[in-house]
Amino acid sequence: MQDIIYMREALKQAHRAFDNNEVPVGCVIAYKGRIIARAHNQVETLKDPTAHAEMIAITQAASALGSKWLQGVSVYVTIEPCQMCAGALVLARIKRLVYGADDPKTGAFGSACDILKTRGLNHSFEVTRNILCRESSFIISEFFKKKRRPIKKAGVN
Amino acid sequence: MQDIIYMREALKQAHRAFDNNEVPVGCVIAYKGRIIARAHNQVETLKDPTAHAEMIAITQAASALGSKWLQGVSVYVTIEPCQMCAGALVLARIKRLVYGADDPKTGAFGSACDILKTRGLNHSFEVTRNILCRESSFIISEFFKKKRRPIKKAGVN
Repeated sequence: MQDIIYMREALKQAHRAFDNNEVPVGCVIAYKGRIIARAHNQVETLKDPTAHAEMIAITQAASALGSKWLQGVSVYVTIEPCQMCAGALVLARIKRLVYGADDPKTGAFGSACDILKTRGLNHSFEVTRNILCRESSFIISEFFKKKRRPIKKAGVN
Repeated sequence: MQDIIYMREALKQAHRAFDNNEVPVGCVIAYKGRIIARAHNQVETLKDPTAHAEMIAITQAASALGSKWLQGVSVYVTIEPCQMCAGALVLARIKRLVYGADDPKTGAFGSACDILKTRGLNHSFEVTRNILCRESSFIISEFFKKKRRPIKKAGVN
């Protein structure tokens, strides 16, 4: 139940991304029953390939805890993280990852690869999938449908 | 020859990290014969697990070019990038990566894993290794030697 509450907050962040014409991914980070970071994808707005929701949220959470290690935190993200974000979650030593929908193209927790099977990994964590999966993938497919829709030309009969 | 010049600049950044008590990794990014980003590892200073030299340099370079894609850039880094940084280099669509020394524990270009072998990867690039390898690994081993050295207790005899 708690997972669904936090994932709804992550989904709100994904909707913010959608409204800003960003690939709609949202993330929140919880620690001891409290949300300490909320972020949405900002790659287009910041023109920065590293500005994924998870990366921004990790930096926020580290700042909130005053620590480079996010021990004891749970990360909620609407879509399976990519390799960059997965690597950051390992470096941050999180306790648990919860995500909505798989990303068959770039997901790094079993889809394109599985970062937790990397040899010599010095930190691992629990992963829970498919929490609000339909809502998380629906907003993504709506976004790409909108992107592909032809723009009506003004002044053409 | 040009590679050695740029790698010397990356090494200068690694020395800055060393002086700030950070794991000494440095990075510069070059575009059309000019350095557009220089950064060193700042994980301890910023208390941010994502603040690797490469990540900071990628954000700087994207800002310099006004683009989320770093097409045509070459990235020089003293140590083989980890999975987070490797993922960011793929997302940034760089042209070429040049690095100094392998990182057997976490390197993502053949040591711990090889990100360029991920299935379905939508961007790849040339990788050149072993440029100023000895200098790049020497500064790392000096750093960890210093860390392990016992601190002399003040006021004991």
